[in-house]
Formats: sequence, structure tokens, C-alpha cells
Amino acid sequence: MTYCLAIKIRKGLVFASDSRTNAGMDYVTTYGKMNVFCWPGDRCVTILTAGNLATTQAVLNRVQRDLDDPDTGLRRAGHMFEIAHYIGMTSRAEQEQHAEIMKHAKVQADASFIVGGQIGSQSPEIYLVYPQGNYISASPETPYLQIGENKYGKPILDRVISADTTLEDAARCALVSLDSTMRSNISVGPPFEVALYETGALAEPRRLKLDLGAPLYNTLQTRWNEGLQNAFRNLPRFEWE
Amino acid sequence: MTYCLAIKIRKGLVFASDSRTNAGMDYVTTYGKMNVFCWPGDRCVTILTAGNLATTQAVLNRVQRDLDDPDTGLRRAGHMFEIAHYIGMTSRAEQEQHAEIMKHAKVQADASFIVGGQIGSQSPEIYLVYPQGNYISASPETPYLQIGENKYGKPILDRVISADTTLEDAARCALVSLDSTMRSNISVGPPFEVALYETGALAEPRRLKLDLGAPLYNTLQTRWNEGLQNAFRNLPRFEWE
Repeated sequence: MTYCLAIKIRKGLVFASDSRTNAGMDYVTTYGKMNVFCWPGDRCVTILTAGNLATTQAVLNRVQRDLDDPDTGLRRAGHMFEIAHYIGMTSRAEQEQHAEIMKHAKVQADASFIVGGQIGSQSPEIYLVYPQGNYISASPETPYLQIGENKYGKPILDRVISADTTLEDAARCALVSLDSTMRSNISVGPPFEVALYETGALAEPRRLKLDLGAPLYNTLQTRWNEGLQNAFRNLPRFEWE
Repeated sequence: MTYCLAIKIRKGLVFASDSRTNAGMDYVTTYGKMNVFCWPGDRCVTILTAGNLATTQAVLNRVQRDLDDPDTGLRRAGHMFEIAHYIGMTSRAEQEQHAEIMKHAKVQADASFIVGGQIGSQSPEIYLVYPQGNYISASPETPYLQIGENKYGKPILDRVISADTTLEDAARCALVSLDSTMRSNISVGPPFEVALYETGALAEPRRLKLDLGAPLYNTLQTRWNEGLQNAFRNLPRFEWE
């Protein structure tokens, strides 16, 4: 498994990802899942990956190779949805290449992606690209998208994120969401990467990589725990108490 | 779906359940999932149900009928694990009766149960009974059990519950866990039932049934939201803030 998410708010976009991959229980490794492609002043695209590592690596290899292609790829797309479509089609092509043999081996070649960023003066967008290659965007009512193990970390997003959340608060919320997921699912693990992209910047997002033990992450964990305990103590008593 | 949970702490046991059942998206109904059987001074057993409603109702019908049987059932069991075994075998027998036709209809007849309580001077126990009829108990390290939609409501349990939690705090935590789940999964819904059983009581647990709009539940939702917002405001700033 994996857990990645992206948040779209008025101020910009936040991307966050864990770094654990596993092929069964007995082969656990660490791979970053956040990929940033930026042409300052023109466009900035972030791609988060989940699913079969061979598929996601192959897709990123092709994305990288296509940067030199005058007809396709991240640099040529006129709109963010075209980039989502391009990633979806690339992913599907990659999966189809191995479909027969994977079926025999009973291995899933599925991959899903979150693709987000901004092109020129268009508004920033985030898309979730399904393994089948189709995709959905976030909405004002649902300002975030998740791939991988999405359940444990969802309640906190539902309670905190709105269109008016600041970039930094959204990033903190993403970290809490990752932390909650890591505690419940061992296939999600650090280091956690976070990228904050400000609407209109058309430049490299601000990026953080937090491993267990990073002072900021430690403090965040401690304060969040304390805050929950406080919230807990403030809950109403039952009438017999 | 459904969401039920039980918590075992030193002070006693807490049971909690939602009340939504559905057969597809277009047939949503309300059924209580908490069943209490109590013989004051001797034993007290609570059964929570999840899964196919015909199966869980049939199991409870047989449990009720078996109360008159001198050789089996809730009253005859010498230990709580025997009750878990009895529920498991009853559930399996009920599922097997319809297995062939259910397979043709592509309908799941699966059901799972949480069975908990106390017999005489033995220590209180809770068991999760799987659809296959086998079962597990809680442990000091994992003092709770869940059936149905268990992911959304798990992080708060992991953060709050320990062996030393009070009965009332465990009940509040169960309500927050149900509330978080309801917000993320429409197959989980009110009224919520909660039962607090005090170790050694061997009497009816204290029971609450909270619908949306119940003052206690309203206050709990409001304060929890406020508490989370406060916890959130207290999280560490990034170095550039």
C-alpha cells in the first residue's frame, strides 16, 4: 500500500506522500512517491504515485523521456486535465504491456496517480488518475484527493479542510492525516514528503521531507496527541457523572 | 455496512453500535445491532452484529430459542469463549443452510459478531466472531474489537484507549469513533447505541441510545470539532511562518 494525498484550496495546492513500498510482507523498501516537474514562469506539475512500483516507475520513465518529444508530454499539454489524461493513457499502456503475464502470476500491475499543478494563468488543479486511465478532479465541496490507503486519514481532512484553509494549515493537516494512517497501517511509512504550491507562483513548490525524529514532526505528533487529549477532556459528561 | 465496536478496560466493557442497514443503495433501513442478555448475579452477555441481516436475525432467533435448552446456549456456557464458539457455530450453520442459493444469487450471507460480557467471578471478556465461526479476543495491547466499517474510526481508538481509561471516557471515545465513521461512510448511521458494563456488576449494563439531535450527542459533536480546531491551532509552525 501507500498513502498520498493532494489538497486544493484557494491559496494553492498541497501534496503529501509516504515513502514505503512493499512486495509482500518480507520485502519492504523506501521509495519517494513525489515527483515535481517545473518550468518556472510557465508551468509546474507534481505527480504522486501509488500501486505497482514497476508500473509507476515505467510511467515516470516515459514521462521523463517524453519531455524531449515536441508533440506530447507535460510541457506540451494546454490544460491540466490533458496532463491527467496523458498520465492515465501512459499508465494504461504500461499495464497492458504486461497484462497477460501478470494475470498468470496473479500479481496486480495496477497503479493510480495524483496529478496536480498549474499551467500559465489557468487555475491550479488536482486530478486523481485511476488504474483504468480515467480521472476526476477535486471540487469546492471535496477539496482533496487521496490514493492508496485512504480511510484512516480521511476523517481529519473532512473536519479541517475548506477552501479558505491556509497553505500551511493544509500541509499540517496532511501530515496529521499521514501520521494517523501510519499508526494504523504498517504499509504506510516515513519519510513523509510535503510540497506547498502557491497559486500563481509557477515555480518550484516549497518542499519538506520529514523522517521519524525530525524535530518538526516530533513536535507535531506530541502536540496533536496533547490536543486530542484536551479535546477529549472537554467532551460532555454523561448525566450520572 | 455497519460499524460496531467493543472496548475492554480494567473498569469494565463498553459496547457501541450504529443502526443502519442497507440492501443495496435504494433500501436503507434502521435496525438496532446491540442485544443484551442478562441474568443478574450470574452473567451478562452483549452481542453486536454486522453483515447479512437475515443471517444475524436468524442467529439471534436461535440464540433466543436456545435459552430454553438445558444443554446449550448463553446460560449454559461455562466461559465467555464458549459463548463466542457457540455464536460462531450458530452463525456458520445458518450461513451453510443458504450457501448454495446465495452463491447463485451472488449475495453475501456473511455475518460477524462481537460477543462480550462476564460470567460469575471470571474476568469480563470480549470476542470478535468471524464469518467462518472462529474468534479472537482483545488484549491489553489491543483493548478493542471492531466489526463492519472499522477503518475511519480506528485512529481515535488507537490514540485514546488504554487499560486505565475510565468507562465513561471509553464510551465517549466510542461515540467519537462512530461519529467519525458516519461522516465518511453513508452506510453507517444513527441512532447510536452505547452500553457500559462495570466489571463485577453482573447486572444490566447502563445503556444509551443517541439519535441525531440528542443534546448530549450534539454537544459531543460540537465540542469535539472545537477541540480538534484548537489542537490544530496548536500544531508547530513551519520555519518560514
